[in-house]
Order: sequence, then structure tokens, then C-alpha cells
Amino acid sequence: MKLLEERIRKDGVIKEGGVVKVDNFLNHQMDIRLFNEMGKEWKRLFVDKPINKILTIEASGIGIAAIAAQYFDVPVVFAKKTQSINLDGEVYSTKIQSFTHGRVYDVIVSKKYISAEDHILIIDDFLANGCALLGLIDLVEAAGATVEGIGIAIEKGFQPGGGLIREKGYHLESLAIIDRIQKETNELIFRQNCTK
Amino acid sequence: MKLLEERIRKDGVIKEGGVVKVDNFLNHQMDIRLFNEMGKEWKRLFVDKPINKILTIEASGIGIAAIAAQYFDVPVVFAKKTQSINLDGEVYSTKIQSFTHGRVYDVIVSKKYISAEDHILIIDDFLANGCALLGLIDLVEAAGATVEGIGIAIEKGFQPGGGLIREKGYHLESLAIIDRIQKETNELIFRQNCTK
Repeated sequence: MKLLEERIRKDGVIKEGGVVKVDNFLNHQMDIRLFNEMGKEWKRLFVDKPINKILTIEASGIGIAAIAAQYFDVPVVFAKKTQSINLDGEVYSTKIQSFTHGRVYDVIVSKKYISAEDHILIIDDFLANGCALLGLIDLVEAAGATVEGIGIAIEKGFQPGGGLIREKGYHLESLAIIDRIQKETNELIFRQNCTK
Repeated sequence: MKLLEERIRKDGVIKEGGVVKVDNFLNHQMDIRLFNEMGKEWKRLFVDKPINKILTIEASGIGIAAIAAQYFDVPVVFAKKTQSINLDGEVYSTKIQSFTHGRVYDVIVSKKYISAEDHILIIDDFLANGCALLGLIDLVEAAGATVEGIGIAIEKGFQPGGGLIREKGYHLESLAIIDRIQKETNELIFRQNCTK
């Protein structure tokens, strides 16, 4: 998606170790107009899918998922990190390794909000090694629900997550895929794909 | 706001100790259509304020704030709980006591995203004792920015937060204020206010 690629080039900050910080517009400050364009694009890419619910994970997926949900006219469920004493009843749970925070999270979703009848679009901000996404897929499949598609804002094409998920046959649409970062110039090289 | 009050009556679950669970539509599963009506209502209530940014706190404030931001055409910044190693540079920080989770959080916001020129609308899902909200006000005022208003989805009128915040002179608009819960019938009694 050209609009997102241009924004990453303009406002993304490249750090050591392939870290691209986009907290100016994506995951600390959120550009809601941009999120609307992303939502429209996912709707175009998943238009033929019978999606009745969006699943994301706290915290930075929530804003993107909420705005995107307007184009599908469906509710959003966000998976929660660590058991909240306020979340009663039975939950589906999985463990997700976070490289960013250097720890393992328990991630849960109430059984009330995903069931075998659900056709789920998973939305998240980043895809790198794929741990978070595989955890969300686990939760959906534990409920017997169907993963109709996966929408990611920014995929790091030089990390294994995207390849892993596509090999498993999931319909994954990343709006911007960073294939590499030119060492000398710090230029971002994006993969050509089918997004607008 | 009648629509929200009716929804709380219909789908809220009353627990021991004055806990009202609304994870069916507000803070686990999110009803995005309802959030749009809430956003419209806050716009009506704060229409005369020169708001240029919305501040909320992860996680359950984010979806509401993102949708509401569309009616103000402004970006959203969400304050983060605990220091993320991926959030560099200087931050404003405060400590917030969470009674729900029985612990104290460090809450931070990057200095890049709130400045003295900002006119902030604070949005959050719940107001009970007011700890989270006072923390967010701290962050805004540490930056020298102006709190133009505070929009809350559900206020527990039988807890001290709302009174405390209003006494300090802030323009607080809670879309539903639960004044008490009838012990025998578990009926929710809402405060009459100026929301639609």
C-alpha cells in the first residue's frame, strides 16, 4: 500500500538490529485517517470472505482493528495479555513469546466471544517472527472458528513470520512488507505486492 | 446517553462489590457501531473546545478513542503501562494504582507526542476511583498542555472519582453514570444528566 510505505519512509525511524519505529503514526500516536485508508484496503483485499468478527491483540492492534471493523461492519474482540482478575468464566489461552519485551505472555480470549460459527479476520500492527500471530491463530482454532484472513500493517519480510504463515496456507495481506534495510543509506526496500 | 444505558442494562453483568462487567460490548468484545454513537455524542458535548489531540490509556480506552477521534479529526495518543524497551527517548511518566489488577503501574507517554501547544481530550472507558484519570491529567499537565475535556463511557457514581475530577474544575462528560445498584433486584440506577 503506497500510502503506508510512503508514511513509513517519511516518519519511520530505523534503529539498530532491523528495528523500525513507527510510534509517530501507528503504535503510540495513531493517525486515524491513515487507519481508515488501511481499513478500506483490507476490505478490498478480503471482500469475498464471510467475515463476521475481527480478532486482534492488545494494545497496539486495537486502534487499527476498531477502525478497520467499520468497513466490515463487525465487532472486534481483543485478546488480553496475562489473566485479568476481572475476566471471569472460561477462556481460551495460549503463550506468546515477545522479543520486544523479552518475556512470555499468557494471552487469553473469553470463550463467550469466539465460537465455532465465527469467521475471523485477524488484524495486527506488526508481523516479524510470527509468534503473536501464531498465538492468535491458536486461539481461533481452539474455538473451532475459521481464520478467513490475516491483515497486517507492516511485515518485516526479512524475518520468518510471513513465510511461515503463508506456507501454512493462510490468506495473509500485509499492507507494507519491508524486505530489507540498505545498510549504507538506511533506505527501506519494500516488496512489490498486490496492495494498492 | 440512553443508548449506552440501555446497553449496560441489557448486556452488563453485575458482580459482587459493585463490579459491572461490560466485556460483551465495551472492553473485550467491542461494538464499533455503539462506539460511533458515543463519539458523536462527545463531539456534541465538546463542540466548542479547540481539541487537537485525544489521549487515552491502553488497553480498553484505545478502541473507543480511535473511533471518537473521527468526529474530531485528530490523532490519538495512548499512554503505555510499564516501560517498553522499544519506546526510546524521553517520556512523561506517572504512577497509577489499579484496583482491578491489585498493583501499581508506571504509565508513560513520549514527550514527542504531547507538547505545550496541545489541547487534549482525554477518553477512557471507566471512571471509578479516578486513579487512572488523575494519572492521565498528570501527564498532560506535565507537558504544559491543556485538558480541554474528559470523556468517559461509564462512570460509577457511587465511587469518588467523578466528584473529585469535577471539583477540580475539569469538564467531565460521562455518557452513563451508575449511581447505585439496587441490592434486591440488581437494578442499575442511572444519574440523569445532559447527555442525549
